[in-house]
Amino acid sequence: MSELSVEHLLGIKYLKETDIDLIFRTADHFKEVINRPIKKVPSLRDITIANLFFENSTRTKLSFELAEKRLSADVINFSAGQSSVKKGETLIDTVNNILAMKVDIVVMRHASVGAGVFLSKHVDAKIINAGDGTHEHPTQALLDSYSIREKLGSVKGKKIVIVGDILHSRVALSNIFALQLQGAKVKVCGPTTLIPKYISSLGVEVETNLKKALEWCDVANVLRVQNERMDLKYFPSTREYTQLFGINQEILDSLDKKIVIMHPGPINRGVEITSEVADSNQSIILNQVENGVAVRMAVIYLLAQQVKR
Amino acid sequence: MSELSVEHLLGIKYLKETDIDLIFRTADHFKEVINRPIKKVPSLRDITIANLFFENSTRTKLSFELAEKRLSADVINFSAGQSSVKKGETLIDTVNNILAMKVDIVVMRHASVGAGVFLSKHVDAKIINAGDGTHEHPTQALLDSYSIREKLGSVKGKKIVIVGDILHSRVALSNIFALQLQGAKVKVCGPTTLIPKYISSLGVEVETNLKKALEWCDVANVLRVQNERMDLKYFPSTREYTQLFGINQEILDSLDKKIVIMHPGPINRGVEITSEVADSNQSIILNQVENGVAVRMAVIYLLAQQVKR
Amino acid sequence: MSELSVEHLLGIKYLKETDIDLIFRTADHFKEVINRPIKKVPSLRDITIANLFFENSTRTKLSFELAEKRLSADVINFSAGQSSVKKGETLIDTVNNILAMKVDIVVMRHASVGAGVFLSKHVDAKIINAGDGTHEHPTQALLDSYSIREKLGSVKGKKIVIVGDILHSRVALSNIFALQLQGAKVKVCGPTTLIPKYISSLGVEVETNLKKALEWCDVANVLRVQNERMDLKYFPSTREYTQLFGINQEILDSLDKKIVIMHPGPINRGVEITSEVADSNQSIILNQVENGVAVRMAVIYLLAQQVKR
Repeated sequence: MSELSVEHLLGIKYLKETDIDLIFRTADHFKEVINRPIKKVPSLRDITIANLFFENSTRTKLSFELAEKRLSADVINFSAGQSSVKKGETLIDTVNNILAMKVDIVVMRHASVGAGVFLSKHVDAKIINAGDGTHEHPTQALLDSYSIREKLGSVKGKKIVIVGDILHSRVALSNIFALQLQGAKVKVCGPTTLIPKYISSLGVEVETNLKKALEWCDVANVLRVQNERMDLKYFPSTREYTQLFGINQEILDSLDKKIVIMHPGPINRGVEITSEVADSNQSIILNQVENGVAVRMAVIYLLAQQVKR
Repeated sequence: MSELSVEHLLGIKYLKETDIDLIFRTADHFKEVINRPIKKVPSLRDITIANLFFENSTRTKLSFELAEKRLSADVINFSAGQSSVKKGETLIDTVNNILAMKVDIVVMRHASVGAGVFLSKHVDAKIINAGDGTHEHPTQALLDSYSIREKLGSVKGKKIVIVGDILHSRVALSNIFALQLQGAKVKVCGPTTLIPKYISSLGVEVETNLKKALEWCDVANVLRVQNERMDLKYFPSTREYTQLFGINQEILDSLDKKIVIMHPGPINRGVEITSEVADSNQSIILNQVENGVAVRMAVIYLLAQQVKR
Repeated sequence: MSELSVEHLLGIKYLKETDIDLIFRTADHFKEVINRPIKKVPSLRDITIANLFFENSTRTKLSFELAEKRLSADVINFSAGQSSVKKGETLIDTVNNILAMKVDIVVMRHASVGAGVFLSKHVDAKIINAGDGTHEHPTQALLDSYSIREKLGSVKGKKIVIVGDILHSRVALSNIFALQLQGAKVKVCGPTTLIPKYISSLGVEVETNLKKALEWCDVANVLRVQNERMDLKYFPSTREYTQLFGINQEILDSLDKKIVIMHPGPINRGVEITSEVADSNQSIILNQVENGVAVRMAVIYLLAQQVKR
């Protein structure tokens, strides 16, 4: 197979396993490219990409921007603060206006669940979802799986535990879909108030004891604690969270094997993970960041192949 | 004629009809370029352009930026929020500093009437006015006329009504100048409190009855309602405005001909125009946006021909 | 010598005189380049540079960006407002994440003294300090010296007085180091409350009488008055400051020679310097801005030579 089965990257749940495989093989090539002295290819000189970030983002936006520049695409950036969105324009109008300027691909982060799907039905461009509310963040899940594959040889059959605030996490949901599609086993671990009720319907087991969760897994993907959500009703305090679900070297040393530690960033050092663990050789956190550029280059490149020329 | 009669694009009122003709013929070429797979030309590889936006803007800024990139110019962006302007620096100092870095063309949006003219007398660069207060917005008027010419074959002899808040609109003023220069007839239609007293001195008739205005015209250019200006003393409420001056399909269907609908954006759907009309085949709103890039490429390209090399 | 003795540009105090000489000879070349019609060289096509501005800046950021683009480097911009820094991420994490995306050179402005030094010990990239708190601003000092050399033939043996708020000025400190290293004599002049106590330990004399200071010097480098710091306890009022330390044409005409006037910008016209002086032919303020791009190209180019390829 040499083409994606989808026309947009709206969520992992729309992908087939062969899509992920194609993205990863393409990313292998681009990872080699970005480790060359000249980290660029001229592939997308005829493609214009608009990055529409209606929510703040650092690493995701930078990662997409670098991916686009290294593919030699023309890039325009648009963030909500500067936008007509403040003047009350609808999302479709904003994007249609941008598209009338001949934009081929839109990378969008938006606070509303389903914003990408909605957009893809109304505008004539490839849409890449860079995070829609608490729903999906597909490129993050792809780079996470790609990093597991790189570290452990494959994703199939591996046991991954996702630790933290599952309820509000688009990273968790996209990861669950991606990992299951590739034949991995997934558990989640966190305070019961932060585990969504529908989780069992996804075939995901809940393990509220961190030690047991870590003993079971090959990989722990540690989610960021959203400090702004803590200390509210039903939520544990930050201190309590760290005591029950924080990953430190002591708990890792108590296991009878070396598990792989992942984190989508940004890290709250000393809260969900200690500095010692984050910077240890069990951690592949910076590999995730590096792989993010290669995986995003692959996604953009593959969708651009479908753009009419 | 192959050269502009002006050294800057400060306002339509400084242009000759032959200038507009030259800009449009040049834009025809660039419109063809941006519809090719590779939407770029290497024409201005030796030109550096600074976009100085002292007021917020989405589409104008994006449109200029794309025009500049598609001409292969070097582009630097500067918006007031990040600037020394906050530290109390004068406009001339800000711009002189930018020019000392060897900038050839300045595209400027500024809240003060005449900011571009003022600047052109004090700094050694080509100035393009991207909107100065309530005064002029010449590239918008050029792209509006260009879109009429594209839709109806020519501007000469056509009847255009501009609907809305004429008093505060730089789009209206620049359009009046541009349309009259090309031999079109112009009327304005809106609440009497939003029509400037000097309008008759420009040879423009006022028609306060929307139905009569639409019956007369070939094209209605519908201005955006500035919500922040409504509901004040002398101003109608938004609801009252919509009842008296909003364009809906019913009023269009009541005419004995199909008129062309334009809007400079961003649209307040359901206020000055209904979604049905904005998205209908009488509307050329998205064509205006597309033509904006081609027209701006033409203006920049023609001014760049005058830069000493 | 054809290579810098340092691996980063963290401050002037780490440089040798031969480093400054190498930077200036390299800048001579780039100054010639940026005065050509095509102001670009393809030298750094294989280098990616991240501009990390954790504090606002206009001219420094623009100047670096232009320098980088004219060297054909890939540039990514990052300012604190959009960043994970707001989410409480540490500086090292922010930068490590950026570096994992394969960035070769980091240009950083940060409010904390020593931020650049700290970073250089923890991340694998060339660091250029674009201002760290009240500490150093090395490229400003280099472009200041370069402008003196250009105007007066050399820096060695020249007498420079730095006028203004020495206590809070990174420009002053870096200038003192740079000028002394090149064999110039330096005095400072300003309100005693704005002169740091350690100044004599640097071998710098204090002259609180402006007239006497100007009579002594060949060059007066006039610092910006930070209005936000004035009118506080221990600080003079702005009016008092202008009367005692403002540079006007009258005081310059009272001298028996023509001294050179410099200012790092942005200027408070009528406060620390009058418009008449700032725009006179004694002023080299705009030459400083122009030279800033050439000097920054030189620094970046020389550090890039050390990047492993």
